[in-house]
Amino acid sequence: MTTSGHTMADAATMRRALELAMRGPARGVNPRVGCVIVSPHGDVLAEGWHRGAGTAHAEVDALGKLEPGAAAGATAVVTLEPCNHTGRTGPCAVALIDAGIGRVVYAVADPGDHSAGGAERLRDAGVEVAGGVLADEVEAVLGDWLFAARHRRPHVTVKWAAGLDGRAAASDGSSRWITGPAARADVHRRRAAADAIAVGTGTVLADDPALTAREPGGEFFDAQPVPVVFGRRPVPADAAISRHPHAPVFVEGADLAADLHDLQRRGIRSLFVEGGPTLASAFLAAGLVDELLVYVAPVLLGGPRLAVGDLGIDTIADARRFDFAAVERLGDDLLVVAHPRPTEGN
Amino acid sequence: MTTSGHTMADAATMRRALELAMRGPARGVNPRVGCVIVSPHGDVLAEGWHRGAGTAHAEVDALGKLEPGAAAGATAVVTLEPCNHTGRTGPCAVALIDAGIGRVVYAVADPGDHSAGGAERLRDAGVEVAGGVLADEVEAVLGDWLFAARHRRPHVTVKWAAGLDGRAAASDGSSRWITGPAARADVHRRRAAADAIAVGTGTVLADDPALTAREPGGEFFDAQPVPVVFGRRPVPADAAISRHPHAPVFVEGADLAADLHDLQRRGIRSLFVEGGPTLASAFLAAGLVDELLVYVAPVLLGGPRLAVGDLGIDTIADARRFDFAAVERLGDDLLVVAHPRPTEGN
Repeated sequence: MTTSGHTMADAATMRRALELAMRGPARGVNPRVGCVIVSPHGDVLAEGWHRGAGTAHAEVDALGKLEPGAAAGATAVVTLEPCNHTGRTGPCAVALIDAGIGRVVYAVADPGDHSAGGAERLRDAGVEVAGGVLADEVEAVLGDWLFAARHRRPHVTVKWAAGLDGRAAASDGSSRWITGPAARADVHRRRAAADAIAVGTGTVLADDPALTAREPGGEFFDAQPVPVVFGRRPVPADAAISRHPHAPVFVEGADLAADLHDLQRRGIRSLFVEGGPTLASAFLAAGLVDELLVYVAPVLLGGPRLAVGDLGIDTIADARRFDFAAVERLGDDLLVVAHPRPTEGN
Repeated sequence: MTTSGHTMADAATMRRALELAMRGPARGVNPRVGCVIVSPHGDVLAEGWHRGAGTAHAEVDALGKLEPGAAAGATAVVTLEPCNHTGRTGPCAVALIDAGIGRVVYAVADPGDHSAGGAERLRDAGVEVAGGVLADEVEAVLGDWLFAARHRRPHVTVKWAAGLDGRAAASDGSSRWITGPAARADVHRRRAAADAIAVGTGTVLADDPALTAREPGGEFFDAQPVPVVFGRRPVPADAAISRHPHAPVFVEGADLAADLHDLQRRGIRSLFVEGGPTLASAFLAAGLVDELLVYVAPVLLGGPRLAVGDLGIDTIADARRFDFAAVERLGDDLLVVAHPRPTEGN
């Protein structure tokens, strides 16, 4: 990213483009993007934003509001690098070139595997291009979309609740409620913030969870995560997830990396992995965890029912290492947030 | 305890008695006790303190400094209720009565099973008695002695180090170092503060620990805990504990409550249970834990080597419940301190 060649006025216009971007949908396959077309004299000629997959991109939305030729020599200020991809719509880079745009200012480079390259195409056509304007603010708004586009999979949070001895349930399988109401409310808030919530078939068969995000009183949050069920075992047609506001997605789970890529292509940017131990352990063993949330209850249970199963680790040198990002008291419980420690290897 | 019938002067004299008590040894079978004999006009006639098992009690030490008859009608101010027990020395209550003491002021009632009853004996002999003067200050100085005398066993701290998944070691048994230097230094400081340190024979055979309390540079702390080895398996004569400054104590471990009572009678007031999992689990299953210290490393290990084994708990309602007393960052690790939650039952 370069920030060369842009002005104070560009930054102010970018802020307006960001406001426009925020009008778009927060979830889905496509990012929020805003665009402002400014005349060589600094007058705003048109504004546009993206309304979601299948609708016009922000640049095309803005250009469409102008008479033919009106954008000649103008500057397009757009929150994301114009795409270079023919999908349901043509490449924005070409649309800008065809409209006679003389200069493009963008905030964040397009990380898409098919869509990147717009800046280069614009430059090749003689358009002046400046990137990186207000990049931090725009990245914050793009949020999980950017992570998912860069990694070609959703951001994965693995959550479990356990006693101080790492047990998730007593020997007879009972675990309700190992943690208290404050911890459970925290989980529901985080469910609501995630695009999707993942469980294994074992958990569906054992616990029949609703996988909805609910207020402590039982009311649904406005945003509900898509339930995703991993595994090959059949799930009863009358399972509670069949009454979820979103239709459940079923994936095999034999190749988690491939499954995650598929979920990203469905527009799932963040996945909240709730359990059980088999699924959590599979994500951990595969190294596909971006954040751990461990709700630690002040109890000891002993016995065989562990929150985390085998991870294929033989010796201490091969331990999966994290960094504690936060520790929070939630009622009688603790929430420990941990992130994978970056290593030389990855 | 009653605080009736004492004066401002009594409290000031008790503070002096407490200073005298502090001259005694901080560890051992007997408590630190101080005594001041004051004339009816308020003049200090004599001072005394206890120098440890086999030496005179504080009251007798003070009285011994007076000519016969000099204590007649005087007040004895003593930090602990005078004993009513004939051991290596005669009952202090009787010594005070024989000396003609008219009034006794004490801070804390004697919790000893054999030695209590001194106040009653004094009253029966016509001596005026007031208890509870500066009780909180004196209790703080008596510390673990009072706990051990009341419970007839040492104060028991169980410590372990584990990953976020409750594993204390990798599958091959390697665990060095699961936690970092700050956590290890904290363990050594706590070892130095304990009268004794307990391990099972399994840990001696597997790890051959020194069980000394050392500074990070390797220097020994002045105070070293007595090593106590629980179990029936023979320990090699050249084990590292044979070079410990204190001779190791070997106990069978078949009846932990009885073993703890024996340790208390040897003067061990606080026991730091370091492991391994078998010993920690036995203390936990027996309900003989006063404090848990869990050093949580930001690692996951999976596999079968758990910090806590089976506790005989079948269902969640029977979970052993604690309260988190503190959570502390120690370098990359966490220290979680927990205390057993009081229940209706105990």
